[in-house]
Amino acid sequence: MKKFQILALLFLVSIVNAQKVQSPSKSLTVNFGLDNEGKPNYSVTLKDKKVVNQSFLGLKLKDGTDFTKGFTVENSNTSTFDEVWKPVLGEQSSIRNNYNEFVINLIQKKSEKRLTIVFRVYDEGVAFRYEFPKQKDLNYFIVKEEKTEFNLAGNHKTFWIPGDFDSQEYVYNETLLSEIDNEKLDLNNGIGVKSIPGKYAVQSPLMMKSSDGLYINIFEAATVNYPVMHLELNPKTFGLTSILAPNAIGDKAYLQTPCVTPWRTIMVSDDARTIVSSKMTLNLNEPSKIEDTSWIKPMKYVGVWWEMHVGKSTWDYAGSQNAQNTETRELIASGKHGATTENTKRYIDFAAKHGFDGVLVEGWNVGWEDWFGNWKEDVFDFVTPYPDFDLKAVNDYAKSKGVKMIMHHETSGSVANYERHLDRAMNLMKQYGYPAVKSGYVGKIIPRGEFHDGQTMVNHFNFVAKRMADNKLMVNSHESTRPTGYHRTYPNYIAAEAARGNEFNAWSNGNPPMHETILPFTRLLGGPMDYTPGIFEIKMSAYDKTKKEQVHTTLAKQLALYVTMYSPLQMAADLPENYEKYPDAFQFIKDVAADWQDSKYLEAEPGDYLTVARKDKKSERWFLGAITDENARTSEIKLDFLSPNKKYKAVIYQDGKTADWEKNPINYEIKTMTVTSKSKLKLVLAKGGGTAISFEPIN
Amino acid sequence: MKKFQILALLFLVSIVNAQKVQSPSKSLTVNFGLDNEGKPNYSVTLKDKKVVNQSFLGLKLKDGTDFTKGFTVENSNTSTFDEVWKPVLGEQSSIRNNYNEFVINLIQKKSEKRLTIVFRVYDEGVAFRYEFPKQKDLNYFIVKEEKTEFNLAGNHKTFWIPGDFDSQEYVYNETLLSEIDNEKLDLNNGIGVKSIPGKYAVQSPLMMKSSDGLYINIFEAATVNYPVMHLELNPKTFGLTSILAPNAIGDKAYLQTPCVTPWRTIMVSDDARTIVSSKMTLNLNEPSKIEDTSWIKPMKYVGVWWEMHVGKSTWDYAGSQNAQNTETRELIASGKHGATTENTKRYIDFAAKHGFDGVLVEGWNVGWEDWFGNWKEDVFDFVTPYPDFDLKAVNDYAKSKGVKMIMHHETSGSVANYERHLDRAMNLMKQYGYPAVKSGYVGKIIPRGEFHDGQTMVNHFNFVAKRMADNKLMVNSHESTRPTGYHRTYPNYIAAEAARGNEFNAWSNGNPPMHETILPFTRLLGGPMDYTPGIFEIKMSAYDKTKKEQVHTTLAKQLALYVTMYSPLQMAADLPENYEKYPDAFQFIKDVAADWQDSKYLEAEPGDYLTVARKDKKSERWFLGAITDENARTSEIKLDFLSPNKKYKAVIYQDGKTADWEKNPINYEIKTMTVTSKSKLKLVLAKGGGTAISFEPIN
Repeated sequence: MKKFQILALLFLVSIVNAQKVQSPSKSLTVNFGLDNEGKPNYSVTLKDKKVVNQSFLGLKLKDGTDFTKGFTVENSNTSTFDEVWKPVLGEQSSIRNNYNEFVINLIQKKSEKRLTIVFRVYDEGVAFRYEFPKQKDLNYFIVKEEKTEFNLAGNHKTFWIPGDFDSQEYVYNETLLSEIDNEKLDLNNGIGVKSIPGKYAVQSPLMMKSSDGLYINIFEAATVNYPVMHLELNPKTFGLTSILAPNAIGDKAYLQTPCVTPWRTIMVSDDARTIVSSKMTLNLNEPSKIEDTSWIKPMKYVGVWWEMHVGKSTWDYAGSQNAQNTETRELIASGKHGATTENTKRYIDFAAKHGFDGVLVEGWNVGWEDWFGNWKEDVFDFVTPYPDFDLKAVNDYAKSKGVKMIMHHETSGSVANYERHLDRAMNLMKQYGYPAVKSGYVGKIIPRGEFHDGQTMVNHFNFVAKRMADNKLMVNSHESTRPTGYHRTYPNYIAAEAARGNEFNAWSNGNPPMHETILPFTRLLGGPMDYTPGIFEIKMSAYDKTKKEQVHTTLAKQLALYVTMYSPLQMAADLPENYEKYPDAFQFIKDVAADWQDSKYLEAEPGDYLTVARKDKKSERWFLGAITDENARTSEIKLDFLSPNKKYKAVIYQDGKTADWEKNPINYEIKTMTVTSKSKLKLVLAKGGGTAISFEPIN
Repeated sequence: MKKFQILALLFLVSIVNAQKVQSPSKSLTVNFGLDNEGKPNYSVTLKDKKVVNQSFLGLKLKDGTDFTKGFTVENSNTSTFDEVWKPVLGEQSSIRNNYNEFVINLIQKKSEKRLTIVFRVYDEGVAFRYEFPKQKDLNYFIVKEEKTEFNLAGNHKTFWIPGDFDSQEYVYNETLLSEIDNEKLDLNNGIGVKSIPGKYAVQSPLMMKSSDGLYINIFEAATVNYPVMHLELNPKTFGLTSILAPNAIGDKAYLQTPCVTPWRTIMVSDDARTIVSSKMTLNLNEPSKIEDTSWIKPMKYVGVWWEMHVGKSTWDYAGSQNAQNTETRELIASGKHGATTENTKRYIDFAAKHGFDGVLVEGWNVGWEDWFGNWKEDVFDFVTPYPDFDLKAVNDYAKSKGVKMIMHHETSGSVANYERHLDRAMNLMKQYGYPAVKSGYVGKIIPRGEFHDGQTMVNHFNFVAKRMADNKLMVNSHESTRPTGYHRTYPNYIAAEAARGNEFNAWSNGNPPMHETILPFTRLLGGPMDYTPGIFEIKMSAYDKTKKEQVHTTLAKQLALYVTMYSPLQMAADLPENYEKYPDAFQFIKDVAADWQDSKYLEAEPGDYLTVARKDKKSERWFLGAITDENARTSEIKLDFLSPNKKYKAVIYQDGKTADWEKNPINYEIKTMTVTSKSKLKLVLAKGGGTAISFEPIN
C-alpha cells in the first residue's frame, strides 16, 4: 500500500513538471514544476530564449514550517483575464490588463499545510506570488525568510545599486552580473543612512540586458503588509535570491491567513521600449480604494527648497544645521532662514504669475536646529511655525493669488513621533486648505531597530496614504520605500522620491549624465518620482566660486526631464530669479502637462538614451522629451503619433551648438516650426543633453 | 611633579571618602566616596545599624564611555530643602518635602567627561540619581547598562516577585534574600506575557525586613524617559544590582545631555508604618505640570466588567474570545455580550441610585473577537461601537441620570496602533463627555521587541498622561509600568493597575490573603492602584458550581480595602445584584471617601496586617480599614486621631463570629456605637478578614 502511494505521488509530480503557461500572445512561457523532493520551481522562456533557468520557490516560517519542499499539488487552475481600466492620473488614460493566470494549490500531506503559488503571465513579463489560504494549523505566522530564486541564463549587463534596507539614493553601476560587489563601491556619496546587508546584495528593480539583446527586469508589485524584497547574487551562477528587509528583532513579516505576498515580477522583451512603457506593475495592484477621486489632481509647483540646497538660505531659523540642543538655547534669527513669510510670498507671486498650481515651503516649522543624525525621537511637531513664518498670512495670500500651498512634514525618520502627531498635522492642513504634503524620512528609523524597507515602514507609508485619503489629501513621500504600483490603489499617493534625486547634484558627487536614462527602467516602473528637474543655474559655482558641484546635464535636458520622468507632480525646482534669466526656456516648463492621455516611447536604451512623446490629458497638445547620457546623440524621429490631418506648431528646445553638460551646460536654442503626423524631426543632443518639444495644434 | 599630582589626588579622594550626609533629624547617614580606582560608592546607616554596605555606582554607555570608575571629584555641594506642598488628590491635603541634598560633580580627567551624583537624604530614606551635565564630548548618548548596587547588610526576609520586563501581576513570595530563585516558582499563574531575564531577577519596590527589626525598601522615583529598574540578586552577598529593561535591540536608554536618571531610593525605618506612609516617592517627582487642575476629581465607579471575569457575559459580541479572524467572519450576536445599551443602562441606574460618580464599560467597541495573544497590530480602533452598544443613547442616558461614563481603551499591547488612533479616540471622549479612560496593555508590545518596562513604553505611558491632560481627561492604566510618583507631575494620571489585582481571584489561583497586606509596602508606594475591591459574591461557584476559584478574603475585608488600598479612583467591582443582596454592607462602599485630608497608619506589618484611618478631604468624617493575612487577628486601637471634643457615630463592619476567608467568607456583622478621640476599639479580624469603620461626627 505504501509503495502504491509513492508511485501515485511520483506520477502526480511528473504531471506537474510538465505544466506550461503562456502569455496571451504565446511569446512568453513559464514552466512550473515540483522536483523529486516536492520543491516548487519555475523557469521562463521568451520565444526560444531561456530567460530564467530552473529556480526554486518557497518560504520558511518562524514556527519551523518549511514551505520550500515536501509539497504535492492538490489541484491547479488556469484562467484568462482581460480588462481595460482608467487610472485617476497617469501616462495614459486607459490601461489594458491582460494575462493568463495559473493557480497551483500545494499541500504538505503530513501536516496538511497548504501554500498556493499564483502565476500571471503577461506578454511583457511574468508575475507570481505566494498565497497562504485559511487553514486549520496556520493562522498567525511569522515569515523567517523568503527563498525565491531568479536564476538568470547569462552574465548580463546590469544596472544596479546596492541592496540597502535604508536607502535607494545611489548612483547606478553598469557592470556584468559577475562584477557586482558592494565592497568595491565608493560609499562617500552623500547618503546619510546606509544598511547594506552584504557584498552581493542589490536592489530591485534590477535592469539587465543579455548579450543576445534581451532586456530583463526583476522587480515586485503591490508591496503591502510585507517588507521590501532585495536580491542576493551568486556571482558564479548568476542566480538571484530574495532578501527581505528584517524588523528590529530579525523577523521579516507578521501575517495572518488568508493572505498573500507581493508579486515578484520578471519583465522581459527584445525591445527596451516594452519594458519602460510596461504597466504590468500597476496592473498587479488592486483597483482604487478611494471612491471619490475628484480631488486628486496633477500639480506643478515651485518652492522654498532649492535655495537651501545651494546654500543661499537654511531650513532652520538659527542658520545652522549643526546646533545640538534646542531645549536650552534661544532661537536667534540668522537672517538666512528661507521659509519666511516674505520669501514665501515672493514664491507665491512667482507661481501665480507663471501659472503654477502650488508652492512648497520647507523649514517652515520649528525643529530644524537639531533634526538629523542623532536618532532623536521628538524632533518636529508638524504644527508649530517658526516666528518669521506667519501660517495664516501666507495661506491667505496664496488664496488671494489662486495658488495652493504644499505642506511639508519632515519626520527625520522618527515615524513613531510622526504617527503620534499625524492627526493634528492633517487638521492643520485642512484648516488652511493645503491639498498635499511632501513628507521626508531622512535618518535612522524610530521605532529603533526598524529599517526604511521593513514591513513596519511599508505599512507606515501605506497607512499615511490611507489616512491622507480619508482627509482628501495627497502625499509625496521622500526617503520612503520605492513604490510598487500602490498608487493604483491609493491614487492620492501621487509621487515619491525613493531614488537619487536632482538634489544630489547640488552638494554631492551628484548624478552622472546616464542617471536619468536608467531611472525609467528601474525606479519609475513602480510609480511617479518627484525628481525635481528644471535646474537652469547648472553650476553651483554661481552661488559660491569655490564650489565644484554641478547638475550633470545641459539646460535643455532639464526641460526634457519633464516628459521623460513621468510624474503628475512636477517641481520647477530652481530659484525664481534663475527662471527669470531664461524666460524663453522657462516657457516649456510653464506649458508642459503633468497628466496624460497617451504616451509613446519612441526610443529607449537603458543607460544611453530615451525619447518619449506624451499627449496632454485635457487637450490635443503633445510634448516630447529626449535625453542622452554622457555621449552626444543624433536621431531622426517620426511624428506619426500626432493626429493625422492636423497641423501643429512645434516649439523645439534643444542644446545649443556648443552645449556640453560639463563645459557649456546652459547653451540652448529654441526653434519653432509647423509639423504634421507625417513629419520627421532630427534630434541633436549634446553630451549630457536633451531636447524638449511642445506641439500645439494650429486650429 | 608627577608624584605631587598623585599625592594631591589621593588627598582629594580621602576627603571625599570621608564625606557624610545626614537626614534632617540626623537619624540616617549616607557615606559617599571614591575608591582608589576612582569608583564612586556609598553606604547607608540608620542610627548605628548598617543598612547598605559599600555599594558601587555608575553606568556604561554604548559609545564605550565607562562611568563606573576613573573619577575624581571636581566639586561638591550640600544644601537643605524644606517645603510643604498640596497634592491635587491624595492621602493627605499637604505633604512636607524635607531633605538634605549632596551634589557631587565627578570628572574623568583624561577625557574631561563629567557625571554628577545627587543624594537626597530624608529621615525615612535615601534617594540618589545620576545627572549628565551638558559637556563638550557628551551630547546624545545611549545607556548600555546601569551598574547601581544595593549591597544589603544581611539575609533579610523579603517580599518579592520575579523581575519581569512585561508584568508585575505576580503573587508575592516571602522568603529570605538567599532563597530568591525564579526557577523554583510555579508560573502557571494566569499571567499572559512573561519576560523574566534571570533566576535572581526581582522587581522593585522590594520590601525587606532585617532580623534586627529594620524595614528596608528599595525602589525608584520619577521614572521619566528611562526604562524601569529591576534588580539582580547575588544570593551569596545579598547584593542587588540594577537591571534596566532593554529595547528591541538591547539598548537601555537614549538620552541627551543635560539629563537625569530616575531616583534610586532606599527607605529604611524600625517602624513599618514609616515606610508605608512615606511620601518620599512623590516628593522626588516634579510638581504638577498641569496648571488648572479643577477638572481632576476622585471617582467611585461601577462597571460592566466583573461580570465578564466571572463568565456571566463576554467582552466580545460573538460570545467567545477564541475567534481567530474577524476579517472574514460575520459578527453574530451570542446573546452573552456584556456591553449592551440595555445592560449599561442597568449599571447607570444602579450608579445613580447609589451615588456613584461613574460607569465603566468594557467590550463596547469592535475588536474583541480576536484581540489577544497573537501579537496582532491592528486590533481596536477605539471609536467603533458594537452594533448593540448605542454610544449616543448610553451617554445621553448617563447625563440624564447625573452619571459620568468611563471610557475603555484596551490596546492589547499594540501601542503603535493606539498612538495612531489616540487623537481620534480622545475626540470621541470629548464629544460625549467622558471624563476619564481606563486603558489596558494585555499582550506583547508592538513595536515588536519592546517590553512593557522599556524606555519606549515608559515614554508612552507618560505621553498618554500628557495628551490626556492636554484634553482635560484622566487616565487609569492597566498592565502599565508600575507608577513611581509621576502622578505628582501629571495628577490626571489618577491610578494604574500594574500589580496583581482582584480580578485574578476570579479565574486563576488568585491572590492569597496576605497579598493586600504587602501591596501598600510595594506597588502602592509608587501611586494609587485600581485594585477593584468590593467583591461580595466571594466564591465563583455561585456562578458555576464546577468552579473552585474564590476571592481570598472575607466580605468585611473587601470593605476595608477601600481604606487600606489608597486610590482616588475606586471601583465597586461586584455586580449590582450582588450588592443588592447585602445592602447594609454595601452602605460602607457608598459612604467611603476617595480623597483625603489626612491619613494615619495605626498598625502595619508587611505580609501580616495593616490598619489605616483616613479623614475625608471635604468633611469631618473618618474611615478606618484594618486587614489581616491568613491569620485571625485581634488588636486594640486608640481613636486619638479623631478630633477632640467631638462625638462620632461609628459604624463598624466586621467579620462575623464564624467568618473565615475560606470556609465562611461572607459572614459579617455591623455594629453602631458612639465614640470620641479618647475611645479605644477592639478589632477582631477573622482569617483573611478585615474591619471597616465609618466615623460620622454627631452634630
